[in-house]
Amino acid sequence: MNEMLRLLMAHRSIRKFTTRPIEPELLAEIVSSGQAAATSSFLQGATLIQVNDKANRKALAELAGNQRHVEACAEFLVFCADLRRAGNCCEVHNKSFSGEYTEHFMIATIDTALFAQNVVIAAESLGLGICYIGGLRNNPREVSDLLRLPQGVYPVFGLCLGYPDQDPQVKPRLPLSVVLKQDVYDDSADAEAIASYDQQVTEYYYARTGGGHGTPWSLQVATLLSEKARPHMRAFLAEQGFSLK
Amino acid sequence: MNEMLRLLMAHRSIRKFTTRPIEPELLAEIVSSGQAAATSSFLQGATLIQVNDKANRKALAELAGNQRHVEACAEFLVFCADLRRAGNCCEVHNKSFSGEYTEHFMIATIDTALFAQNVVIAAESLGLGICYIGGLRNNPREVSDLLRLPQGVYPVFGLCLGYPDQDPQVKPRLPLSVVLKQDVYDDSADAEAIASYDQQVTEYYYARTGGGHGTPWSLQVATLLSEKARPHMRAFLAEQGFSLK
Repeated sequence: MNEMLRLLMAHRSIRKFTTRPIEPELLAEIVSSGQAAATSSFLQGATLIQVNDKANRKALAELAGNQRHVEACAEFLVFCADLRRAGNCCEVHNKSFSGEYTEHFMIATIDTALFAQNVVIAAESLGLGICYIGGLRNNPREVSDLLRLPQGVYPVFGLCLGYPDQDPQVKPRLPLSVVLKQDVYDDSADAEAIASYDQQVTEYYYARTGGGHGTPWSLQVATLLSEKARPHMRAFLAEQGFSLK
Repeated sequence: MNEMLRLLMAHRSIRKFTTRPIEPELLAEIVSSGQAAATSSFLQGATLIQVNDKANRKALAELAGNQRHVEACAEFLVFCADLRRAGNCCEVHNKSFSGEYTEHFMIATIDTALFAQNVVIAAESLGLGICYIGGLRNNPREVSDLLRLPQGVYPVFGLCLGYPDQDPQVKPRLPLSVVLKQDVYDDSADAEAIASYDQQVTEYYYARTGGGHGTPWSLQVATLLSEKARPHMRAFLAEQGFSLK
């Protein structure tokens, strides 16, 4: 296994950072690395907001469900899916903009995710730690207003970046056979593999908390999927111009 | 700049591959690297179908809009967003499944994209080339039937992997100031930056084709966004159980 694979496999979220800042030149290189990711039809449908303003950081930390690391990390980036830039291009070239399709929402969102994952890898290769903040979607309207996101732009997630002040264990992932299928989707053997994985996850939590009760993975996921998930998202997206037609 | 950043910034899509196969052990390591990416609430909402069957490869190449590299590459992976696995967990734990929200669609889709981008980086670090195949969404019903994707699973995109038999130039990306904003979304200075970038992209195409007419980026994007984009996606997703509520 080479160094890159070792780096990728060593990923864990960091939620405690030192006060050491990230040099602007370094951040620029990290973001440029993000831009180099593949983009659907060359759209480049992502825009990042770097949040420097302390009051806004504090507000975002609260809006994301009181995640203090949003306030405390060296840099906080909000990754936005952006069709406004494309809309502006339509105006320049005197074409009518038709960005209301589900597919448009998808390509901008996927572009943003690929960009972000490159940023993550670049940052981790430089000794930084990261934490994705999906919690921004708890209050996407307030987040959008704070960052003055116009129509055609929505916050997909945030990203904390900084030098780690903790060293958590890597969380075990599902067995390969569960996520990689041959020719067709066949999950008939998965129940057994997942039961054994549940055991592994429970042990991971046990080791990490020094004896606390770990929740098996399948129960975590069952709980997550049995609850309403941010039921405001659909209406919010429509307001921002993503009508998912 | 370190090796990893250099690797990330050197990305370009590869559409011509040698016949050299990818060792199964290597592919397993690459996919495991993909699994190590962050996942929303530990959902692990992605499943990959490795397409070995030659007839299916040929069919997928056609369904994606006659992209011959889908047939010719060493390995072709279809990245699927997967809520079925979570649904199965709900059954095991006797909970009702509520996976019909837009947010559910988003977390599974984003999980899949982050996974894929890690796979891409791992592959490229090993000297492989890749090409994302969003074209699978041209005919998502036929693709899903071919791969026997059940309810709760949809094909987000495909990925060609193989040893490169071409060495295309890296495509220039938007100026950093256009994609990285400070504190608020402000694109008032973007028009000028994009005009200069358009010039750069035109020169890139000129150099690549040895004199062919290059289309400026803003015109490519304007053309893309003025057209209907896979208008079947919404209904297809609903059929697969993603109702985007």
